Amino acid sequence: MQLFYTPDIDPKLSQYFLSEEESKHAVRVLRLAVGNEVTLIDGKGGLYKAEIKDAHPKRTILQINSVIEEFNKRNHYLHIAIAPTKNLDRIEWFLEKATEIGIDEISLIICQRSERKEAKVERLDKIITSAIKQSIKAYHPKLNAPVSFNQFVKQNFDGDKYIAHCADGEKAELTQSFKKQGRYLILIGPEGDFSPAEVDAAVQNGYRALTLGESRLRTETAALEACFEVNFLNR
Amino acid sequence: MQLFYTPDIDPKLSQYFLSEEESKHAVRVLRLAVGNEVTLIDGKGGLYKAEIKDAHPKRTILQINSVIEEFNKRNHYLHIAIAPTKNLDRIEWFLEKATEIGIDEISLIICQRSERKEAKVERLDKIITSAIKQSIKAYHPKLNAPVSFNQFVKQNFDGDKYIAHCADGEKAELTQSFKKQGRYLILIGPEGDFSPAEVDAAVQNGYRALTLGESRLRTETAALEACFEVNFLNR
Repeated sequence: MQLFYTPDIDPKLSQYFLSEEESKHAVRVLRLAVGNEVTLIDGKGGLYKAEIKDAHPKRTILQINSVIEEFNKRNHYLHIAIAPTKNLDRIEWFLEKATEIGIDEISLIICQRSERKEAKVERLDKIITSAIKQSIKAYHPKLNAPVSFNQFVKQNFDGDKYIAHCADGEKAELTQSFKKQGRYLILIGPEGDFSPAEVDAAVQNGYRALTLGESRLRTETAALEACFEVNFLNR
Repeated sequence: MQLFYTPDIDPKLSQYFLSEEESKHAVRVLRLAVGNEVTLIDGKGGLYKAEIKDAHPKRTILQINSVIEEFNKRNHYLHIAIAPTKNLDRIEWFLEKATEIGIDEISLIICQRSERKEAKVERLDKIITSAIKQSIKAYHPKLNAPVSFNQFVKQNFDGDKYIAHCADGEKAELTQSFKKQGRYLILIGPEGDFSPAEVDAAVQNGYRALTLGESRLRTETAALEACFEVNFLNR
């Protein structure tokens, strides 16, 4: 199945023009021809069945045959805020796997002990786009540009807020008082963990301290564990 | 904490000699000196506290001060048999993350639709060793050399056996009749899935068809999902 990500598609129109880049890919690489069927996803829940009407290498014209709205709509809202890892491969792996498993929003937070102080959203967003195409998801998770922990922790969020950390102290498990089909925001710290001041600030702002099990997990593994738990508890 | 993997250590002796390679690392790279404390893991559950008695760059002598046996012993036995991915990064990523989350044994199975027909166990085993050092686990998961699916599926396993596949048909979820603190063997197929003949052969050999959720997961993501679920259900 040939899948294209077309966030700018207008669901009311019966025709769509692929971009120059996508037209070249469709015609020269995939060798699609008139009559071939393709699938389009708009990132907002729309999955379209279309067919090639004109296989132009710069301006391929598609005829839209059908649309499913809210395709496989998720039954809960999961937002994970993660400190970008020093090694970019690791945060990229997390974005790909979290998108496969199921996630709605990712924020990048620069913490006191962060080894990486910046991250290019455009490059990371492409990882997510590839993952939704590969796993056939019609919703494109939102990726937010890096902000400082202190700035992020004060932002409003209507739902259950958690901060996962490794220091001693009382921590809840997600299973405790878990509200299914809810909205969840989970903070995952850098390799050196959140500082005590950061944990305090989070608690002051309505976050609960969270444990993700007994094992000592890397940043990206902890983030994926959180993603897995929320999805699993919502089955 | 400086950690060394010393599978050949004799728990009855109070002294241990690091290998030439590890001695060089300890003295020239880590710059450890007499009196410095180190931790040793033997891969069989033993975690040792030791200190440098002679910081020789070719033959460092350690004095063993204490040993914890069955350190953080797992409460269940998980064996995942996975078709190695075409891109080795992906199977390496799975081995690292599964080791962090918790796993006992991994088998590599070459299936009908496998794109990769071989894999170097030595190189993959090093990934596991690094992961147990990083996540401070005293048990080293066992990694078996590649065998054909047909050969593997006939092997005995005392426990619950599952084959995860993507085709239609009746499939159980792990949560259904899950026995905590049990022994589990889960088969994960290649990118093109198991063939119908392979699923039949598995069922003939006592495997139950398994679903890992609604999402379309890559091989290594499915394997890690299975690992997450078994560990989570055993908390």
